[in-house]
Amino acid sequence: MKMWGGRFSGETDARFSGFSSSVGFDVRLFPYDVRCTAAWAAALGAAGVVTRTELEAVESALAVVAEELEAGTFEFLTTDEDIHTAVERRLVELEGPAGGKVRTGRSRNDQVATDLRLLVMDACDELAGGLSSLQLALIQGAKDTRGAIVAGHTHLQQAQPVLLAHLLMAFVEMLERDVERIAAARAEADCMPLGSGALAGTSVPVDRESLASRLGFSRVSTNSVDAVSDRDFVCQALFAVTMVMVHLSRLAEQIILWCSQEFSLAVLDDAWATGSSLMPQKKNPDGPELVRGKTGRVAGALVSMLTVLKGLPLAYNRDLQEDKEPLFDALDTTLSCLEVMAGTVGTMSFTAGPGAGRPDSGFITATDLAEVLVEGGMDFPSAHGVAGRVVLECERRGRRLSDLTDEELAEFSGSFLPGSAAGLTLEASVARRSAVGGTAPPEVERRILEAESRVRGRVGPL
Amino acid sequence: MKMWGGRFSGETDARFSGFSSSVGFDVRLFPYDVRCTAAWAAALGAAGVVTRTELEAVESALAVVAEELEAGTFEFLTTDEDIHTAVERRLVELEGPAGGKVRTGRSRNDQVATDLRLLVMDACDELAGGLSSLQLALIQGAKDTRGAIVAGHTHLQQAQPVLLAHLLMAFVEMLERDVERIAAARAEADCMPLGSGALAGTSVPVDRESLASRLGFSRVSTNSVDAVSDRDFVCQALFAVTMVMVHLSRLAEQIILWCSQEFSLAVLDDAWATGSSLMPQKKNPDGPELVRGKTGRVAGALVSMLTVLKGLPLAYNRDLQEDKEPLFDALDTTLSCLEVMAGTVGTMSFTAGPGAGRPDSGFITATDLAEVLVEGGMDFPSAHGVAGRVVLECERRGRRLSDLTDEELAEFSGSFLPGSAAGLTLEASVARRSAVGGTAPPEVERRILEAESRVRGRVGPL
Amino acid sequence: MKMWGGRFSGETDARFSGFSSSVGFDVRLFPYDVRCTAAWAAALGAAGVVTRTELEAVESALAVVAEELEAGTFEFLTTDEDIHTAVERRLVELEGPAGGKVRTGRSRNDQVATDLRLLVMDACDELAGGLSSLQLALIQGAKDTRGAIVAGHTHLQQAQPVLLAHLLMAFVEMLERDVERIAAARAEADCMPLGSGALAGTSVPVDRESLASRLGFSRVSTNSVDAVSDRDFVCQALFAVTMVMVHLSRLAEQIILWCSQEFSLAVLDDAWATGSSLMPQKKNPDGPELVRGKTGRVAGALVSMLTVLKGLPLAYNRDLQEDKEPLFDALDTTLSCLEVMAGTVGTMSFTAGPGAGRPDSGFITATDLAEVLVEGGMDFPSAHGVAGRVVLECERRGRRLSDLTDEELAEFSGSFLPGSAAGLTLEASVARRSAVGGTAPPEVERRILEAESRVRGRVGPL
Amino acid sequence: MKMWGGRFSGETDARFSGFSSSVGFDVRLFPYDVRCTAAWAAALGAAGVVTRTELEAVESALAVVAEELEAGTFEFLTTDEDIHTAVERRLVELEGPAGGKVRTGRSRNDQVATDLRLLVMDACDELAGGLSSLQLALIQGAKDTRGAIVAGHTHLQQAQPVLLAHLLMAFVEMLERDVERIAAARAEADCMPLGSGALAGTSVPVDRESLASRLGFSRVSTNSVDAVSDRDFVCQALFAVTMVMVHLSRLAEQIILWCSQEFSLAVLDDAWATGSSLMPQKKNPDGPELVRGKTGRVAGALVSMLTVLKGLPLAYNRDLQEDKEPLFDALDTTLSCLEVMAGTVGTMSFTAGPGAGRPDSGFITATDLAEVLVEGGMDFPSAHGVAGRVVLECERRGRRLSDLTDEELAEFSGSFLPGSAAGLTLEASVARRSAVGGTAPPEVERRILEAESRVRGRVGPL
Repeated sequence: MKMWGGRFSGETDARFSGFSSSVGFDVRLFPYDVRCTAAWAAALGAAGVVTRTELEAVESALAVVAEELEAGTFEFLTTDEDIHTAVERRLVELEGPAGGKVRTGRSRNDQVATDLRLLVMDACDELAGGLSSLQLALIQGAKDTRGAIVAGHTHLQQAQPVLLAHLLMAFVEMLERDVERIAAARAEADCMPLGSGALAGTSVPVDRESLASRLGFSRVSTNSVDAVSDRDFVCQALFAVTMVMVHLSRLAEQIILWCSQEFSLAVLDDAWATGSSLMPQKKNPDGPELVRGKTGRVAGALVSMLTVLKGLPLAYNRDLQEDKEPLFDALDTTLSCLEVMAGTVGTMSFTAGPGAGRPDSGFITATDLAEVLVEGGMDFPSAHGVAGRVVLECERRGRRLSDLTDEELAEFSGSFLPGSAAGLTLEASVARRSAVGGTAPPEVERRILEAESRVRGRVGPL
Repeated sequence: MKMWGGRFSGETDARFSGFSSSVGFDVRLFPYDVRCTAAWAAALGAAGVVTRTELEAVESALAVVAEELEAGTFEFLTTDEDIHTAVERRLVELEGPAGGKVRTGRSRNDQVATDLRLLVMDACDELAGGLSSLQLALIQGAKDTRGAIVAGHTHLQQAQPVLLAHLLMAFVEMLERDVERIAAARAEADCMPLGSGALAGTSVPVDRESLASRLGFSRVSTNSVDAVSDRDFVCQALFAVTMVMVHLSRLAEQIILWCSQEFSLAVLDDAWATGSSLMPQKKNPDGPELVRGKTGRVAGALVSMLTVLKGLPLAYNRDLQEDKEPLFDALDTTLSCLEVMAGTVGTMSFTAGPGAGRPDSGFITATDLAEVLVEGGMDFPSAHGVAGRVVLECERRGRRLSDLTDEELAEFSGSFLPGSAAGLTLEASVARRSAVGGTAPPEVERRILEAESRVRGRVGPL
Repeated sequence: MKMWGGRFSGETDARFSGFSSSVGFDVRLFPYDVRCTAAWAAALGAAGVVTRTELEAVESALAVVAEELEAGTFEFLTTDEDIHTAVERRLVELEGPAGGKVRTGRSRNDQVATDLRLLVMDACDELAGGLSSLQLALIQGAKDTRGAIVAGHTHLQQAQPVLLAHLLMAFVEMLERDVERIAAARAEADCMPLGSGALAGTSVPVDRESLASRLGFSRVSTNSVDAVSDRDFVCQALFAVTMVMVHLSRLAEQIILWCSQEFSLAVLDDAWATGSSLMPQKKNPDGPELVRGKTGRVAGALVSMLTVLKGLPLAYNRDLQEDKEPLFDALDTTLSCLEVMAGTVGTMSFTAGPGAGRPDSGFITATDLAEVLVEGGMDFPSAHGVAGRVVLECERRGRRLSDLTDEELAEFSGSFLPGSAAGLTLEASVARRSAVGGTAPPEVERRILEAESRVRGRVGPL
Repeated sequence: MKMWGGRFSGETDARFSGFSSSVGFDVRLFPYDVRCTAAWAAALGAAGVVTRTELEAVESALAVVAEELEAGTFEFLTTDEDIHTAVERRLVELEGPAGGKVRTGRSRNDQVATDLRLLVMDACDELAGGLSSLQLALIQGAKDTRGAIVAGHTHLQQAQPVLLAHLLMAFVEMLERDVERIAAARAEADCMPLGSGALAGTSVPVDRESLASRLGFSRVSTNSVDAVSDRDFVCQALFAVTMVMVHLSRLAEQIILWCSQEFSLAVLDDAWATGSSLMPQKKNPDGPELVRGKTGRVAGALVSMLTVLKGLPLAYNRDLQEDKEPLFDALDTTLSCLEVMAGTVGTMSFTAGPGAGRPDSGFITATDLAEVLVEGGMDFPSAHGVAGRVVLECERRGRRLSDLTDEELAEFSGSFLPGSAAGLTLEASVARRSAVGGTAPPEVERRILEAESRVRGRVGPL
């Protein structure tokens, strides 16, 4: 069944109807379309456009449709252009003209926008749950490795000693910002367009506010032309998941590095790694690699949508149908990547337990060396220069900073006070960075507890 | 002056120092770097790391630097790798070792992140102002054309009559969402990383909370590793301005269409249009075209930044230097596009004043035709079919819907009640769509007043 | 069946194997994998690694696999990680250990790269066919509308009169460049990686040159590390189809404009247009709109792939699995868009037949006005100024250039020679532009014939 | 001086003329514009539109302009909208009306397209030179480290032993494909639009073929509408440099990994590395990091341009002015990245000289272990399983494959022939992979020589 045709005299070309049909993917909107149709029918009833009897007929027919959907027995016809057509067609089959009355005063333009917003709202709730799970896995890792000091890198060069837990908590922070972005995306979607008609507003005197509240929206749109052509909420959801993926790609990169023979800081569980068809010794971090790769896919979806919208005139244009596939794919991809990362992080083991896996480049406490001089009264730039020369000399002699004695230090500068050498241990180094957000163990512990309490306190939909 | 070198024995290649230097563009951070340095010096003073005398020396030297900056007399050296180096170098020139003490406990990693966040916060305030100005120009346009009915399009086909004001207000809505996104971007930037050191936290016992409040931040970062490598705030600002540009590209497209000879709905003011070097009659909408084109540029900047971040391991990596140029360009581009669009909209004239510029395709009230039948008791799908056949027949006969009499309508269906023809005027059509957000004149008027009051009420920084 | 596992002691998590499996989409490589496997078996036979009997066993088993594939009866197991595993697993089921011998000396890394290249080569042949069909539809349109003069636009302002055929031929030119880009993408793919092993080269002394020729490749890769990690050919194919889509988006925009009531230059055939569920009079250009929208999707796929590759170290990384879905989707999307555009263009009718649909803005020959003055000896800048003033005056008086008489022209400038007015007809204007590539009818005719002959002469695979 | 204005009665708003002006960046087209203007003047002379005297006047004025340009004394006025206006304005200043005659029959639309194509052709020549230099640096590295065996990775896991030279040559291959893509981009640009006028073709009977040959083009455009609106050549150049940058990002990542303390395979020269303002021991690979980061910038430029073009109707639209800045930036960025990478690679030293830097994970010859069994008659899948179990057992016992004796091997499988252990050395492993493109030393040597000869043979412009 087509929803139009009176002014056409020729048949639609089969190649074109196949190309134009969206039912293959917008079937995913099915439950939302049924909900919206039920709510609209009720609103028409309240407005006196359908009678009580007609309303009841529609309601019972929708119950049948919902059941068929649930049971997977709903039959699509090749003439069902989209999910809205399919639902209405079935209503008419079941109830005759009364079924068709639900189309009064609405349009596929406001309908699809409403369905899609409801779907985004639900997806955001799921994403927030996925983010929380991964955060908890990271927090658990931080708790399990309490006290383990590893090399912190900048420029992938060993830079300063940090707690492994501090590194893991850095990702918890990133994901916390993602939770906020997902919440903002949900809030953006939470605005009901239903009742905007094709573009000019509905001619039926429905109470849009109560319709919205029935559907779970907290706001209604206030310009019908904008309402049917606005896909900001799709972009915002895509941006939010792109940022999630960017963060996951960074975590993935970190895990891949840690699992390399060269870093040897972490080992994946057999359940979350794969082997090679050719090389028998391989244990590959395919999960994180795929996650890193899928970042491109989700960013590509964002670019797609921005490109679609660029330069579109008012109001609805069919280009907007291209919002769904990239969005669905990006939401699914992100959700599954969150799950895989939670599984991977939750089962991986670190070779850096307390007391093990120490950073060993020999110069990682060079900053502390300078700071020890500053404590002795030297200005930092000069201290930095002295420390640099110590490093250069140690490199030539094949020594490490931690091997130096107070006597040797004194040869470089008279400002090294006795006991300076003792200030160059890894433990002394991390303890020194005790300001808010620093890697000193008590500060890190505080952050772990704060984060755990915050994440665990976040229950239910956003 | 380089801030490092003790452990190096060779000179830097000139080609490399030119490639690596960022001072050419991060000069824009200059005022922020001076502010941050002053605040950091004060914090060092409070922490007892610099003496009261040293602090005063630094403060008076910074005053000199700020003056040189203001006056454009600050001299950069080719050895100034970046703005932080330049400022510190000048401090040392002016004050000797005391000047160098401000480097204690901080790093270019936390410094640049702090500077950049302050810049983004300021830019967001400016952008919000630019958005408001354009909104006011659109609102004025809506007020000036009150009552003018034009063809509303979907699929670029004439669809239903709408108020021109309703179309203009659709853009006001889009921009209102942009204001919210800009505010969210500002809030994201509003978190101070200073005191995170290179990655592990500062070893100086500064009070970061009071430092933040002195600099105008409302929060401090809580994980030093994340703080130096987080550029979410850059992405969020880029996303926000990309959405602004997407909306401007749609407004631009609309104006370009309206100004075409074929649409003839609007005329640009001579002050905001250009001519052709070859074709003497041309008056081209170059402003909107450039704006539409610049959408690509800003979206490209977002893609750049996402690509930069993908797969970066912890913590700071030099790749992050690539955050600035795309960001600065995107902010500037968006601001100037807002200004140009406000100028264009504020001066363009519409040929559709009240009573003029009527939509003339002949069939634009076909929906009303169906609705008239529904009012007579027919179900909407059937009414839609009848209306379609009326259109097909009129097209064959070269008639317009508004020409039809009640008698002629009755030939198509007995359900047309007397007076049906009168319900097909443009005025009747728009009046019918009176639900919230519809194009009925009183509803549009209400929205105009609401929006104007909201925009005018938004003063000062976000 | 997994191709690995000896060094693993734990089971794979079901969530991970689902996430990691690619068989759902790389089933599309099935026929290529069967071909490659057969060729590899033969090469192993020639190298003496498998016996003649084993080879025959493998060949007959592959024939069975191919049949099952054709018939749709091949059964995938949940343990089939990818298409290569599935094929090899079936071979072993059918032939025992001999079936497994085909794995000798190759790896999934070189196998998948080989399969994918063969697929791209075939897809390029199809795309070239699709491009040619659309070109022929445009050429036919140009022939059918021979002589029709329409307004040519720049900045969407009426600029100069041109032949409608000249506009249609502009798209033929764009598509011709696309054919060349598709050919270049095919040539890029045409290089065999098989025999590169996992990354270090195969240890089996196969004759790679003859293997390549058997598979239809004209070259072999010459660095095994590069060969397994190179996806340039995927990017190049994606770029080529993105450019096709950019051109189709421009053609789509043009058709959408032409079909608007305001332009009224073209009418879509009922078979390639759709209606509205609400507005009975609508006939929407959904096909071109979807094509324009799908441009975003294909460009997004290119961005995806570039993002995937950025920063990947040598050699194969699992991120590369993300090459397939965007590629398949982009190839399919482009092919179907070409088909839809060919169908749309081939059936649409122009209201601008010879003698009809004349441009009517009144000033479109203003350039000719200036040129007439130049012919009389004035320098062009001065002539441009005079013509501009004529336009301004005519606009004030409500006259059109074609209404002006020689006498009136003379009032503006003494340089208008008698007969000037006659030089301002549309026919005179187009005739004047007779240089190579201009819109003069004989030149356009020549281009139509050239293009038709070139396109028709292009038969068979690229 | 504006090139238009006769039909305008109001002044241009200063904010708009600033926004619209392109002279700030298209000054880069200056030399090309002078060349094109000279060639066009000559063509007008040949066509009899300007006299011999006028032509000589223009030529000598252009010589002055070229000198002023060279000397940096050319003065731009705020009314110079673009470079074409500036040049013509100066000609008129110098020569009066004769200077203005060069505008006859051309338009800024065909002029700018011609200038830009010439610039792209030159840039491609430079890029090819830059690519060759980097290739030579890599080839030199390969020659210097002849014989050094290192761990080859897949999934960043140690996979198989390979020659370091083989890894370096993998990048030479990538860059060779880039040279081809740059050549294709040049060929795409090499088509002259001059003589297309604004969109309809020029009305002056110039000989476009000889004009093209004078300007160094080998072809002329054959559809004027397409010629002024075609920016495929910009996209193609942007795609080519994006691929260069993708490859450079991979090389950068490799160098960053190699320079880490964990990999310790390479050391940057002091001249191409930087230090830290805080951490005295740091020697950072800022060059490769910046290059990796700049990949985002260049990819962003490609996205910009594709977004600009999407959905543009015929013919020229001002959006196209947005082609220049991203293109110039992308070309410059890529050229400087090539230079920096050549400098970096050409001076870095490898710790893996012959006999040093051996891969040490212990299991890197596991594939060889399986192959040794296959040589003894076992089918590969079974051999793979045995080898996997050997690895698992060795890992448990803390042994390395190279430590195993023939006797120990025999415990795992009776198929290990005496002498098997000797087949597990790194030397035996690489020697085994002697097929075309494999890592066996003689094959790598052959490829080095071939590549060097090919690169050195490539002289002069493409």
